[in-house]
Amino acid sequence: MTSPIIINHVAIVVENLEAALLFWRDALGLSLDKVQAVPSEEVQVAFLEAGTSHVELVQPISAESGIAKYLAKKGAGLHHLCFEVIDIEAALARMQAQGVELINETPRVRDGRRYAFIHPKSTGGVLVELYEALS
Amino acid sequence: MTSPIIINHVAIVVENLEAALLFWRDALGLSLDKVQAVPSEEVQVAFLEAGTSHVELVQPISAESGIAKYLAKKGAGLHHLCFEVIDIEAALARMQAQGVELINETPRVRDGRRYAFIHPKSTGGVLVELYEALS
Repeated sequence: MTSPIIINHVAIVVENLEAALLFWRDALGLSLDKVQAVPSEEVQVAFLEAGTSHVELVQPISAESGIAKYLAKKGAGLHHLCFEVIDIEAALARMQAQGVELINETPRVRDGRRYAFIHPKSTGGVLVELYEALS
Repeated sequence: MTSPIIINHVAIVVENLEAALLFWRDALGLSLDKVQAVPSEEVQVAFLEAGTSHVELVQPISAESGIAKYLAKKGAGLHHLCFEVIDIEAALARMQAQGVELINETPRVRDGRRYAFIHPKSTGGVLVELYEALS
């Protein structure tokens, strides 16, 4: 049986998007889907296809962004894991009922997509994002 | 187009497998596929289904294992990312031709599965594993 919950993307913080693409696109061979700036988060991102999932490379474009601070403190590497669920409100409600600490208790919206982050303290150290599947 | 390279699993180091399952299985809702000991690496692992991929939870079962040392140094969290490729030797050859540093220059075998690790210094800080797809 295939799980109804899929990995939408794995996010990786990089110092330089072009340099990172030399590995992820050219050496590993993932197809580059798109590169876009996300001004609200002061980052530039690249999405590469990996089956039904994506690898998201995230490069800070200001020294003050949250990602720039993360990069300075922890270095480049794996950042968060995003799962796609059918009903994000049901998923968040189930988590809250089980005592999971949510960063976003109600879904936020970006590019028409509902999402929420789960606090790493409730997952065993992993920043987890939920996406609601697009209907 | 769906990429021929898929994410086989995302590995997460945890302090305690049972505690971790309270989030990944019970709160997030991933189906637990199997729990098994890997004596050669002194770990116990749990595989949970996420679409065509898996989340692999890894708990050290000795204080001397590589994973125990990783846990003591870096804490629990995302550990490595494993991609499934059709031809692992072709993939490793392409990487070497592009100057990527490999941890395993020739594939190793575990449970009948050919695999190799790529050094994080060539990926931008991410430990990457390759699996060859089972024919």
